[in-house]
Amino acid sequence: MPASLPLLDVPAAVCCAPLTREPLGPEDAENLASQLKALADPARLRLLSIVASSPDQEACVCDLIEPLGLAQPTVSHHLKVLTRAGFLSRSQRGTWAYYRLQPEALPSIAAVLTAP
Amino acid sequence: MPASLPLLDVPAAVCCAPLTREPLGPEDAENLASQLKALADPARLRLLSIVASSPDQEACVCDLIEPLGLAQPTVSHHLKVLTRAGFLSRSQRGTWAYYRLQPEALPSIAAVLTAP
Repeated sequence: MPASLPLLDVPAAVCCAPLTREPLGPEDAENLASQLKALADPARLRLLSIVASSPDQEACVCDLIEPLGLAQPTVSHHLKVLTRAGFLSRSQRGTWAYYRLQPEALPSIAAVLTAP
Repeated sequence: MPASLPLLDVPAAVCCAPLTREPLGPEDAENLASQLKALADPARLRLLSIVASSPDQEACVCDLIEPLGLAQPTVSHHLKVLTRAGFLSRSQRGTWAYYRLQPEALPSIAAVLTAP
């Protein structure tokens, strides 16, 4: 696998060989656990799935409040966690922020969990 | 996907369509989050990877203590969490417990995180 690039605020999603191939080292385990923690929340999984299944895998924050029935600050917090962990990117357009799926992040984790 | 079988203590690993295909419902999101929480710990990921990369994807608990440098009760706790979440199965043989990878659990999660 390619060496990870030091991108701002985006942890290297491709951390390591599949779990079934060789034992994870301590540092890789920390990185993978922190990405999985960002995913391991029902509200974040639902938000991520709404963005991921939207046209162009992008959604306005204005369309992410109502479906979950959560307060806007709560939704914003969850979106920030997902963005920091590299699953989403954020762009501001006028009043609203738009969130887009980062296409590499989920497949990279899937590739660690199971041998391709 | 096949319907999940009601196995004791083993949650249905195949919960839902890929995140990129349709929004997750509340119940599926709860189930997936609880499985990801079981994984989202560095020690558990390392233990799981040791078992998963062992011959026959099975390891004696006696070989799982030393590599992580953790106390045996801590290791036992982590192994119990992984077993309850359906990632490992446990069998007692004489003095020692052996843990074996449940082959469907990780691929099922991977299939939800990324479209096949």
